[in-house]
Amino acid sequence: MKRREFIKLALATTAAGTAATRASACPVSSRATGDLGVIVERASGSILIIESTGRTVLDRIEGLGDLSHASVVFSRNERFAYIFGRDGGLTKVDLINAVINRRVVQAGNSIGGAISDDGRLVAVANYEPGGVKLFDSASLAEVGEIAAEFGRDQRSKTVGIADAPGRRFLFSLYDGGEIWLVDCGMSGPPKVTKFGGVGSLPYDGLITRDGRYYLAGLFGEDGLVCLDLWADQPAPRRILAGYGKGEEKLPVYKMPHLRGWAQAGDRFLLPAVGRHEVLVVQAETFQEIGRVAVHGQPVFVMARPDGRHAWVNFAHPKNDVVQVIDSRSLAIQRELRPGPAVLHMEFTGRGHEVWLSVRDADRVDVYDTRTFAKLAELPARKPSGIFFTCRAHRTGF
Amino acid sequence: MKRREFIKLALATTAAGTAATRASACPVSSRATGDLGVIVERASGSILIIESTGRTVLDRIEGLGDLSHASVVFSRNERFAYIFGRDGGLTKVDLINAVINRRVVQAGNSIGGAISDDGRLVAVANYEPGGVKLFDSASLAEVGEIAAEFGRDQRSKTVGIADAPGRRFLFSLYDGGEIWLVDCGMSGPPKVTKFGGVGSLPYDGLITRDGRYYLAGLFGEDGLVCLDLWADQPAPRRILAGYGKGEEKLPVYKMPHLRGWAQAGDRFLLPAVGRHEVLVVQAETFQEIGRVAVHGQPVFVMARPDGRHAWVNFAHPKNDVVQVIDSRSLAIQRELRPGPAVLHMEFTGRGHEVWLSVRDADRVDVYDTRTFAKLAELPARKPSGIFFTCRAHRTGF
Repeated sequence: MKRREFIKLALATTAAGTAATRASACPVSSRATGDLGVIVERASGSILIIESTGRTVLDRIEGLGDLSHASVVFSRNERFAYIFGRDGGLTKVDLINAVINRRVVQAGNSIGGAISDDGRLVAVANYEPGGVKLFDSASLAEVGEIAAEFGRDQRSKTVGIADAPGRRFLFSLYDGGEIWLVDCGMSGPPKVTKFGGVGSLPYDGLITRDGRYYLAGLFGEDGLVCLDLWADQPAPRRILAGYGKGEEKLPVYKMPHLRGWAQAGDRFLLPAVGRHEVLVVQAETFQEIGRVAVHGQPVFVMARPDGRHAWVNFAHPKNDVVQVIDSRSLAIQRELRPGPAVLHMEFTGRGHEVWLSVRDADRVDVYDTRTFAKLAELPARKPSGIFFTCRAHRTGF
Repeated sequence: MKRREFIKLALATTAAGTAATRASACPVSSRATGDLGVIVERASGSILIIESTGRTVLDRIEGLGDLSHASVVFSRNERFAYIFGRDGGLTKVDLINAVINRRVVQAGNSIGGAISDDGRLVAVANYEPGGVKLFDSASLAEVGEIAAEFGRDQRSKTVGIADAPGRRFLFSLYDGGEIWLVDCGMSGPPKVTKFGGVGSLPYDGLITRDGRYYLAGLFGEDGLVCLDLWADQPAPRRILAGYGKGEEKLPVYKMPHLRGWAQAGDRFLLPAVGRHEVLVVQAETFQEIGRVAVHGQPVFVMARPDGRHAWVNFAHPKNDVVQVIDSRSLAIQRELRPGPAVLHMEFTGRGHEVWLSVRDADRVDVYDTRTFAKLAELPARKPSGIFFTCRAHRTGF
């Protein structure tokens, strides 16, 4: 990355903002952004914009390319959603005006992205070309590329990208077996710190809510890698040595998403690999402290924001069921059968409701997290991911 | 509270929402709400509406009564701020249109309020008449009153009101020495659970971010009271037995605010009483594990959202200084001298900046939480509290 571009970016940072427009003869929009959300319609390259107060669909935006594996982050003012598509598309959607603001196809193949804590930079993790690209969040101008070079002039697919406090990002090199920390928070070009030899084929990553630990799952061997960013000299270490030893060897695309880990108070609840179990891990020590037998192979284990319950969905063919686990007693509190192919679960900001995508019923269902009553259904075409704007204010989201 | 009103409220809950207006010939407002905030101007009954991306003042709203001790909560869509004034005023301010939407003077004297997790109910803790009033958050119609009756037909001042998951509230009876839990989350009138004899003169309260523990400080004796809401049978217990044994006995209005406790990872950092110290308490056990000698009597100890640092301000006359403590090492990382009378500190959602009210310089200053550089100054009249809209998505805020 050229130093000149980066200095320009640094100088420009004080000026960016959202202009307030108030036409005197026109009503000011009453559309606030705190209760908005995006639902990915995975088979049609479209998204829905919803509002969660009245639980209604506001708009559909089309033309977003291949969303078969897509994720979304938000600008810090919540006005814009950044959609990362599998085909390398990066689309900035204006949620107030329900239009595409900007769109670039920035790589051949891409697996996800993140936005910096100050909202200035969007980072995308690419398979092809292997590396991470950085974009100005306002203009989507490319401001840098970090080629994931390893070994002899090889470039690795990059995975598991997450933001960390201080305008930093972490990601893993799938082919290279490394974790890189990119610091964009100081003057000058981004500083890259490389942690090599972390393990075989890190296939996904997550950062804990406090921005302290970056965890990467390994596909090529058992166990996970943990990097403590608060250590004076961060160094990767192996945790959960047996993780991955399933009853069956799963192909990489069936390995549980690390974003499917729930932080519930002082514990993590996470999907076992190749077993119908949820693991319970002490957050302080990363020691396994229990297991919960569940309905099928867990895909996502999502903690209600207060951490009292974790909601679990499952892989095909048992993906019509959701179970709720009490994070203290580890008992199954409730089993629900929302419908065929429950792909994702998203809680409202304070957790009073959870929204579930029921892909094969072309529906998103809303449940009360206290009574487990179904409150609403919204029509959606093959819905997958659900993302609420309150994620704008959370690390790692 | 009459059952009829409450049933009406329950029936009305499905319909509330924000109408989207999009006049075809008019530009839609580009004002998102995710980066908005309110600054209380304590001597002039006014507030400023600010936006934290460009760090500018958008508007001033006047006519809010006695804001010498005021607090603010937000609607879940972030469009509205509810300002609780000392004189019993409750004002709903439309942050997009910068106007007072509704205002009631609902009591003679009041100390604060809260909003339910689903955003439907606003609760206000009143001194006079002693008790808590409940209001519909959209209309500000009073939907109930819980008279804080104790002993022989006495009514107590109420303090320390906080929201808990499941449309519940907790508060303390200052005169009555009790903690009450109000459950508005099920059908029928609110259910009140009373915990009596918790201690002498509970003067403030807080709920932990997970909504699990309600803590009340005692003015009439040493120690605090802790109520574990996740227990099968919640019961108050005494913690930090020596808390309050200061070198000097403080009057109640100088007792540290419990909202001045920082949750930093697995620890609390909190102001000592009558000592120039910050106490460090293990969150799991509530055992004191350390003390940090600081510049003066701490007033607020505010954790950066990631929990790595805690920022501390002080009581007069040492209130021109702010210190930053590392929550792991407990070392003082930095000492700043922002100006005369630093009353409050508020972090942005992911913690990259902190905003400080410098009352006697008629300024709000913005600092980078990583480099400690000052980034901006905003003019404000005798500013006190600073509240960002991202609080809408947090329990206890």
